[in-house]
This record gives sequence, structure tokens and C-alpha cells, in this order.
Amino acid sequence: MARALNFNPGPAALPLAALERAAREFVEYAGTGMSIMEHSHRGKAYEAVHNEAIALVRELLGVGDNFHVLLLQGGATGQFAMVPLNLLHPGKSADYTLTGSWAKGAFKHAKALGTVRAAANVEADGKFVRMPRQDELSLDPNAAYVHLTSNETIAGTQWHAFPDTGAVPLVADMSSDIMWRPTDLGRFGVIYAGAQKNLGPSGVTLVIVRKDLVESGRTDIPPIWQYRTHAEANSLSNTPPTFAIYMLRNVLAWLKEQGGLVAAEKRNREKAALLYAAIDARPDLYHCPVDKASRSVMNVVFTLPTPELEAEFLEGAKQRNMVGLKGHRSVGGMRASIYNAMPIEGVDALIAFMKEFQRRHG
Amino acid sequence: MARALNFNPGPAALPLAALERAAREFVEYAGTGMSIMEHSHRGKAYEAVHNEAIALVRELLGVGDNFHVLLLQGGATGQFAMVPLNLLHPGKSADYTLTGSWAKGAFKHAKALGTVRAAANVEADGKFVRMPRQDELSLDPNAAYVHLTSNETIAGTQWHAFPDTGAVPLVADMSSDIMWRPTDLGRFGVIYAGAQKNLGPSGVTLVIVRKDLVESGRTDIPPIWQYRTHAEANSLSNTPPTFAIYMLRNVLAWLKEQGGLVAAEKRNREKAALLYAAIDARPDLYHCPVDKASRSVMNVVFTLPTPELEAEFLEGAKQRNMVGLKGHRSVGGMRASIYNAMPIEGVDALIAFMKEFQRRHG
Repeated sequence: MARALNFNPGPAALPLAALERAAREFVEYAGTGMSIMEHSHRGKAYEAVHNEAIALVRELLGVGDNFHVLLLQGGATGQFAMVPLNLLHPGKSADYTLTGSWAKGAFKHAKALGTVRAAANVEADGKFVRMPRQDELSLDPNAAYVHLTSNETIAGTQWHAFPDTGAVPLVADMSSDIMWRPTDLGRFGVIYAGAQKNLGPSGVTLVIVRKDLVESGRTDIPPIWQYRTHAEANSLSNTPPTFAIYMLRNVLAWLKEQGGLVAAEKRNREKAALLYAAIDARPDLYHCPVDKASRSVMNVVFTLPTPELEAEFLEGAKQRNMVGLKGHRSVGGMRASIYNAMPIEGVDALIAFMKEFQRRHG
Repeated sequence: MARALNFNPGPAALPLAALERAAREFVEYAGTGMSIMEHSHRGKAYEAVHNEAIALVRELLGVGDNFHVLLLQGGATGQFAMVPLNLLHPGKSADYTLTGSWAKGAFKHAKALGTVRAAANVEADGKFVRMPRQDELSLDPNAAYVHLTSNETIAGTQWHAFPDTGAVPLVADMSSDIMWRPTDLGRFGVIYAGAQKNLGPSGVTLVIVRKDLVESGRTDIPPIWQYRTHAEANSLSNTPPTFAIYMLRNVLAWLKEQGGLVAAEKRNREKAALLYAAIDARPDLYHCPVDKASRSVMNVVFTLPTPELEAEFLEGAKQRNMVGLKGHRSVGGMRASIYNAMPIEGVDALIAFMKEFQRRHG
């Protein structure tokens, strides 16, 4: 059948070119008589892929020499624990901004490991519809770090400007919007991201961490959970998830070919603008609950007036080969995830269906 | 080129049938218009794969209802930390058998988290050439568990009969020999295995853990590191490494088609017997340093008389399309890893080359 228009929130659509490249050389990689996933992680064939993946992260995001780039396992949830375990020394406290399900998850894990404060909480009536303003942040100038979730996949909210935290480093979960645009890393201590939205398949987690924070990190914890261990071994201390990293390499090579992050931002803003305009044009039928200033460019959430209309919308979308549009079970409604790999044609098709649906419902 | 004869210790050779199955449906899975790695981990297509993988583990190994079967991230090294974190309550101690690099790694991680004892240490002159005898074990009857490494990939040693630890449960790292034969799970509390030797690609870790140990496990640790979290969510608490699990499913489906573990044991014993016989037949040229009673059926290590002969042997093997035969950098020599996916023809080819090498060196 035709390729699906995949609006899944993650694991998500991957660039077709990255998939086809992998399919061509899946059983036999580069004339070696074996699959890349059968190669030793200490052999030349895999090491070239591994180092190219890291180099592409550095190049695309402009990562400076003062940062390590790590490729780990365990997902963003694993980082919910690794960040405080490494950075939150006994006697210190960390600030967390509570902006949705994922930020709350990070906060919960940190609480199990040390002293943490809620520096902001924008929950209202059980909902998260915006990111905090700078003047709402209650920041501890002695905090070990300030944690934020740059994009809340479920709520459909996004930080469009990062807060000023003075000398306290920002730690950001960027799982669902990493590399959506060029990003100034200057104020960040740690950036982490599960790959399965903008970078590749699930099973590999990108961690960009400032070298001084690695050096000063706790040493009284198991080696496998110390950033130090992975930084010293170029993420080859234990066997890495080699095929997931190979796919991440393919995705980043495609992103570079497409013009890098400047071009990605242009495409992503265009897709989101078209989709939000289509929603706002028919307030009787479509409603986005998110404050305009906090609307996500990656995950566009909207509701219809009744559960019956929502079910009909989902069914109609499915018949048109669109998948993954159902909102998260905790908030309902619709969610269109339009990450880097979603072509504008996919968004055009969704909007065309929305207009058709309008005509049917006068 | 022809398919390589892949003797890598892990990531290792995979069954060609499992790779070809994945290649056929890599870009479009089962008529869904997308790759399996683009499917949501909460959707029907992936969930069927996930549950089939777990069901195959249960069926092939005969895992009883008193165990959970988990599919996690982080490798065996991750389990070096998770096991004591969950099972080693404050005030308790755990026994570790020190049998090689991997057992020592597990011991080191546990030491960072609690009280541990060395119940045996077979290191002699910096080498590990055998597994402990029952009468060498100094067991604490009050230990939380006794840890062992069922097969030492680097040393080439293997426990052929598991020790009697009374009422104390065994915890086993079976990364490099899981499913090489039928195994009585009766005395085990936890079995864990990185997939990249006998089960699939790197990036997924199988954990089989007794339900009562999950229930009594520590609750004062981050949720992501509690077995409880993953047991309650069928390993879908956070996004699993979906493609690695899909490949594990393919490998286990192949293993079942080949007659399951009874047939696997027969093939594995035959391969190992042929290879050790070829080594022992020419003691002037080939030498296996491992005690006969502890020789591994999975990783066959041997040396040649001089570094020059070893280099010549490796070069000749390479010319005959054999890869991965160089021993671990910490011990040198040769190592032929002959896991489930290595066909007997691969071992035959290695032996034919060994005989040719003999003739050349009279």
C-alpha cells in the first residue's frame, strides 16, 4: 500500500530515505558479508558509523568542545534518574519547572534521589495549556540546576524562549523537539533526548553534557550510571545499541542533506502555521486548548465538539491512510505530531481532510 | 560478497533467516505502509510483536508463571546495578562468585550499592581458566542471593552444572549462553542476558525474575530502576527498544523452527566437540588454556606458540572470509564464538583452515 501519513508521537515517522538506505544494506553492510548489527562495536565498520553519528550531532547543533556528546540506553526516563544521580550532590537542591506529564515524571524521579523544588507549576484545573513566564519562576540561585521540558508531547506546549537562570545551568529534556531548529547551547548544562521522535528509532538516547559537570559529577554511584564512564569511553564502555545508532546516523545524514537545522526550522514553522491556521479558521469545529504563545511546533493538539465527531474524524482520517492522530489517553482529542520527518505533503493532506470534514458538517 | 563466517563475541552473527525476514518488511511492515520501527509501542502492530517475543521466551525456556519476563534497556551492565538495587536490602549481604571479567564487573557494581562478599575466586596468576567446584564455595546462608556468570565470554569458561545454594536464590548473568540448551529455572531468582550474543541485536536485555522478588524489592529507588515498574507495565512503562525486540522475536521464531533448545543443545555440543577436538589433536600448534571440565560451548579460546603464528593465522582466516577470531585484548590469542546462530558449516570451515595451517607448519 501507499506509505502511511504517520502522525504518531513517538516512535514516529522516519525519513523514507533513511529507511530505504538501511533496507538496501540490511543483510549485507558495505560489502562486509554481514549486517551492521552483526559487526563488533569495537570493529572498524561500526566505529565509523558511531563516530559519524556523534560528529553529525556536533555539526548540526553546533556543539562546542566544552560538551560531551553521549549515546546511551534507557530513554529520557533513564535520564530522569541519571541527571540528579550525577549532578545533585548531597546538601544541594535542584529546581524543576512543572509543565506537563513529562516534567512531572522527571520531578518524581529526582525526588527519589535528592532534594528538589518546584520552581514553577502551570497546572490549572488538572490541565497544562502553557509554559511559565519568566516572572513566574521562583529560582534558587544556589540550585545545582534548573530542569525544563522543552516540549510537552502530550499537552502540545513548547518553550519558545528559554528562561534566564543566571549562573545556574539549564538541564533540558528535549526528547520531542531536539533539532527542530538551531539552538544556542550556551545556557545549558545538560540536554537529553530519546531518539524516537526527531532523531531515529527508540532504543538510543542522546545526552549532551558540559564537561565540567561530568568532571564534578558524583563518583559514589555505580559506574554504568556515571556520565564519566561513558564520556571517557566515547559511549563504548559497554555494548551500545549499535543498530539504533546506525539509524540515528542515517536520519541525521538526511537532515544535513535537507539543509540542516536552518532549513528544518523553516519547514517546521510552515507546517505548524498551516495546521494551526486551519484549526483557528473554524472555531465552531476545531479547538486548540493551548495558549497561542506556548503552542508546540511539533505536537499540534485539538479537540472537536463531541466524542462522536472526534470518533468520526479519526475514522475518516484512517480511511485516508493517516495514522497516530488520536490524542494521548490522559487528555483525549486529537494530536498531530509533525516532527522533522513529516513532509509538508502530510500536513497538506490532513488539512484537506479537515476542510472536507467541515463541509460535511456545515 | 559471500556471507562472512562471523565468529564475533557479540554483537554476533544472527540467523540469516531472521535478517532476511526483517529486510523483506523493513520499509513497510505487514501492509501497514510504515516500518515496524515507526509504529507506536502502544499500537496493535507492535504490541503483537512484543507479546510474541515474550511468549517465545516463555515457551522456549519453559518459564513458569512464578516469573516475570522483562525486556529492558541498558545491557547486562545495567543489570549489574539493577540487581543489587532491587534485591539487596540495607542490612543484607549478597554472595558473588568471581570467575572472570564479567563476574568481576558485576561484583564491582554491587559493591557501590551495598554489602557483598566474594563466595569464590578462581583467579590464578591473573587468569581465569575454570569455574569453581561446589566445595570451593563459601556461601552465606543468609545472603540475599548468590550471583554467577554462567559463561565467561572472555575466558572461555562455562558453568556446566549450577551450584547448590540451598534456599538462597541464584542470580545469573547468562548473556553469552542463554538458550544454548534447556535450563531448569527452579533454583534461579533472576536470569539476565544482553541480547547481542544468542538472542538478537544489542540494545535489549532479557530479564527473567521471580515474582516474589519483584514484590519484595526495594521501593525507595527511582521507578525506572525498579523491576516492579516494568513488571506491572509488561515492559511498556517507557518506550521500549521496539526494533531490537522485533529482531529478538525473529531470532526466537527461527530458534523454535529449528527445533527449540533440545535441538540447539545437540547442534551446539556437536560444534564445540569438533572444534575442541581439532585443537587438542595438535598440541604443538594449538592450545586451549581452559580446564576441560570448564570449557565453554559458546566461546572457544586457544593460542598458538608465537605472536607471529597468531598473526599469520588471523590473516589467513580473514582471507577465507572468517571474522571476529581475535581473542579479547585482555587475554590475547584466538576466540571462536559459536553461538546458536553459527551454523556447523562455519565451524567446519574453521577446522578445515586449521588443518591447512597445520600442514603449512608441519
